[in-house]
Amino acid sequence: MKSSRRNTTIRPVLALLAILPLSISLAFAQDDKTHSAAELKYQAGGSPLASEPMHQNINPKAPPMTKAEFESGKQIYFQRCAGCHGVLRKGATGKALTPDITLDKGTDYLKVFINYGSPAGMPNWGTSGDLSDKEVDLMARYIQQEPPVPPEFSIKDMEATWKEVIPVAKRPTKKMNNYNIANIFSTTLRDSGEVALIDGDTKKIINIVKTGYAVHISRTSASGRYLFVIGRDARINLIDLWMEKPDTVAEMKVGLEARSVETSKFKGYEDKYAIAGDYWPPQFVIMEGDTLKPLKIVSTRGMTVDNEYHPEPRVASIVASHYRPEFVVSAKETGKIMLVDYKDINNLKTTTLDAAKFLHDGGLDSTGRYFLVAANASNKIAVVDTKEDKMAAIVNVGKTPHPGRGANFIHPKFGPVWATSHLGDETISMIGTDPVKHKAQAWKVVDSIKGQGGGSLFIKTHPKSRNLWVDTPLNPDTKLSQSIAVFDIDHFEKGYVTLPIAEWAGLGEGAKRIVQPEYNKAGDEVWFSVWSAKDKESAIVVVDDKTRKLKAVIKDPKLITPTGKFNINNTQHDIY
Amino acid sequence: MKSSRRNTTIRPVLALLAILPLSISLAFAQDDKTHSAAELKYQAGGSPLASEPMHQNINPKAPPMTKAEFESGKQIYFQRCAGCHGVLRKGATGKALTPDITLDKGTDYLKVFINYGSPAGMPNWGTSGDLSDKEVDLMARYIQQEPPVPPEFSIKDMEATWKEVIPVAKRPTKKMNNYNIANIFSTTLRDSGEVALIDGDTKKIINIVKTGYAVHISRTSASGRYLFVIGRDARINLIDLWMEKPDTVAEMKVGLEARSVETSKFKGYEDKYAIAGDYWPPQFVIMEGDTLKPLKIVSTRGMTVDNEYHPEPRVASIVASHYRPEFVVSAKETGKIMLVDYKDINNLKTTTLDAAKFLHDGGLDSTGRYFLVAANASNKIAVVDTKEDKMAAIVNVGKTPHPGRGANFIHPKFGPVWATSHLGDETISMIGTDPVKHKAQAWKVVDSIKGQGGGSLFIKTHPKSRNLWVDTPLNPDTKLSQSIAVFDIDHFEKGYVTLPIAEWAGLGEGAKRIVQPEYNKAGDEVWFSVWSAKDKESAIVVVDDKTRKLKAVIKDPKLITPTGKFNINNTQHDIY
Repeated sequence: MKSSRRNTTIRPVLALLAILPLSISLAFAQDDKTHSAAELKYQAGGSPLASEPMHQNINPKAPPMTKAEFESGKQIYFQRCAGCHGVLRKGATGKALTPDITLDKGTDYLKVFINYGSPAGMPNWGTSGDLSDKEVDLMARYIQQEPPVPPEFSIKDMEATWKEVIPVAKRPTKKMNNYNIANIFSTTLRDSGEVALIDGDTKKIINIVKTGYAVHISRTSASGRYLFVIGRDARINLIDLWMEKPDTVAEMKVGLEARSVETSKFKGYEDKYAIAGDYWPPQFVIMEGDTLKPLKIVSTRGMTVDNEYHPEPRVASIVASHYRPEFVVSAKETGKIMLVDYKDINNLKTTTLDAAKFLHDGGLDSTGRYFLVAANASNKIAVVDTKEDKMAAIVNVGKTPHPGRGANFIHPKFGPVWATSHLGDETISMIGTDPVKHKAQAWKVVDSIKGQGGGSLFIKTHPKSRNLWVDTPLNPDTKLSQSIAVFDIDHFEKGYVTLPIAEWAGLGEGAKRIVQPEYNKAGDEVWFSVWSAKDKESAIVVVDDKTRKLKAVIKDPKLITPTGKFNINNTQHDIY
Repeated sequence: MKSSRRNTTIRPVLALLAILPLSISLAFAQDDKTHSAAELKYQAGGSPLASEPMHQNINPKAPPMTKAEFESGKQIYFQRCAGCHGVLRKGATGKALTPDITLDKGTDYLKVFINYGSPAGMPNWGTSGDLSDKEVDLMARYIQQEPPVPPEFSIKDMEATWKEVIPVAKRPTKKMNNYNIANIFSTTLRDSGEVALIDGDTKKIINIVKTGYAVHISRTSASGRYLFVIGRDARINLIDLWMEKPDTVAEMKVGLEARSVETSKFKGYEDKYAIAGDYWPPQFVIMEGDTLKPLKIVSTRGMTVDNEYHPEPRVASIVASHYRPEFVVSAKETGKIMLVDYKDINNLKTTTLDAAKFLHDGGLDSTGRYFLVAANASNKIAVVDTKEDKMAAIVNVGKTPHPGRGANFIHPKFGPVWATSHLGDETISMIGTDPVKHKAQAWKVVDSIKGQGGGSLFIKTHPKSRNLWVDTPLNPDTKLSQSIAVFDIDHFEKGYVTLPIAEWAGLGEGAKRIVQPEYNKAGDEVWFSVWSAKDKESAIVVVDDKTRKLKAVIKDPKLITPTGKFNINNTQHDIY
């Protein structure tokens, strides 16, 4: 990605985001598992959005396309456009692109837009060199056709892909290894469709587990024994950390595209249920926690907070409540948060809160009572009281907040806060989270500081640390994307210190994005992924939290495109 | 409708059902009210399913049609086919008719089917004379095209049709008339798009109120002051019975097609909220009880009880719980029952029960705790415990139960029962409803008796009566459709007595279907509609409950096509 723009606007950020899933078809090429009918149809033609299963009629008003052109448009759309504009093109981070809108614009206008982009965030696909002139023309015509609708994914489709690799009865009854499993880091190897389980004590790789493509998150069961990972291709792996060599004991596809997985954590329900949220179809599924057997699917299709119907409300994020036997499920496009009570799956009780549109990721406050979730294209953070099952607040923050799970710490002036960085600007917003002892600060932005730049994905601290780490992997300036900013929480006025993480990794040429600070269990080390291209060497850099000095570099030929890392203990106990 | 078949199978019943909505376009022709954008689009071309707003592309695999043919097919489909097969043709009472199925069958096969019907219930549209050869051919081609999707209906669309005819501040503060309003009968005048408010004491018409087309039900507010009526065209009228001449004080369209309306009845919420359920779009809306101001729309699109996605789960029926601040909402195609807590509309709590597919109508047991609802195409009655918010049972009954609200009485042997008659056979099923004192009988069919024949829509008794009345308006035998069967509850073994209600009405030639027995407040009179064609004289026949003799015939030139009647007191207190 060439870019001469060294600013912090959202435009290059989105352009970078958009190129991330380019190699998504790899996930399908390498996947040798059982497939459901819906899945096979979806994959027909070698691409996740190839044609056979999808309704596609010819729109007589749209410019003509050959079948081959249409197929090509469908693939490019899925890879470059769907993330922002939605599968059905109703718009989310990007604008709506349905034919009622695009036909009015016309091919010439659309070509200019695709070619040159816009200051509002549309990437310059043509002039950046990502799309050829021919492809720009093709896409301008393609988006005037009706959006093809991917197939649904029922419980039968899930069951057809479900594999109990090691049934419960054949699993160990106690921990069979000598690993300190609470300090394992489950590390996404994005482009190889794997996770690396790395021993946090020895920094050695324990196992590389074949998973879905571009695992979005890893989550630990309440007991700490089981690890759930979910790929973008909606494949879940359930990994048993008690095995001599921790590995997959069950797996299943829950849809065609997904982002979130979680497990029940309320007292009495530990390890009992799992839940996964889909992007397509727009739904979530509740499963048995130790087998992944699918029990109940719930569609998220429905009304937005504005009481308008939306056909594609993607499940953005899920957390497990500590206060009730509930999952907290955020639907992106509708801006609704569903509190799903798992006490009685057949008589399912759900409380639906009106938050704000375009919900994305989020995390709990330090007490575990409040869930703070970004409504990113609305520039807001929605706060849910998981004890009272009500909205606590909706807070305006900077441009396109992207908290990951956010960072909780005690602000020297304002008490307990939860902080987020932003994709769209360089600020870090801190929101007061203590409505009892710091009532005046609660659910307000009490402090806002400037980091290195926009394009931040993750922010992190630890209860035992006073450092606040902010990454900027999607900033177009390589100086920023290859380094990390660290603040002293007690002295924000001093600004940040930059650590040259990529340099410390000692890798060769090529883009090396520094992404996702993650603490070890003890809270005295911070791990950073040095994310290179698939054919280049990557690494994980470990920094001593106290001295902020390099402590270790983890390198291995198998460590391909590492991105998110999830420390078992910190994930298990929602420490972030 | 000519039919030589004099049996009780479901076939002629469905044929009759299917012709009922033929004059639905009248509702639109006569409606001079404000229209929302969605509604106007829906009506474009003079029909509720005319083309402009709906996506319609040409399916290249389907036999060609002209635009005019397509429009004609759309109208015929809406009038004759959608009730059983669904707007999106996914099937309900009738089979699925999506192009993946119909294209395989081919035009010739489909023509035969449409022309001759089938013993499974498909009417013989061609040989009956309802459709011409040309129309049969057109419909065989039409159903191979993709089903056009009607527009959505958002809160803005509702607000655009909302009229506060008399604002709350300008309404009476006490009853301004001398009517015994608890004994008024709100009587649907089906084809004229009106309800007649008839004084139950004097048998005189108080007012004829302009409403939606073919008002499906009338419901009384908890206080007994307000009356809600909803037309098939989704228009709700709120009628104030305290006015000198009771009339509409607010009205609104809640969608494009609807069947159900209800009001909050839990202590502390009397008259506070109203709720209406749509057939299209598949959703329900909660409104202010005294103004109809729309507050919250909830989509019913989602998974069936089999965990498969359904795009068109129509809201079949709604009742208000007496045990909790909840509405009980039944979605037909998914077979799910939603218990919607209206305590906090912005943090909406809903419990979703898995019942059985194709839910239809139903009512409460005599205690008001249990809701019994027909899953009619599944031949089941689902029982909801509205105190515990759980399914109590699913009971197998006869073919296509159609209880209306059902009939509650004390069976001489088995204690409290709730009974339903059937569209598809001549039986009356009685289900035990007392799990405390008659545990062995609870939620079982304890008795089944034979009535006059199939084609029954309503069954009725009253706490002060020992008569059980069963109508058969949709039976093809005019002897049966023009009379009523009455049983002595204490002597079912004696069989029924037939009363020649149509004959007693003393009307001229033409079909006269006897429909819907309804008691007065005192429980000593039963009212029957004698439903003739729109251009023929109709009547209401009042029978003395004790003597079973004719007591009065109500006739009036304005009494056009009377069907359902709702006694204010009995509706208010769920007495049936």
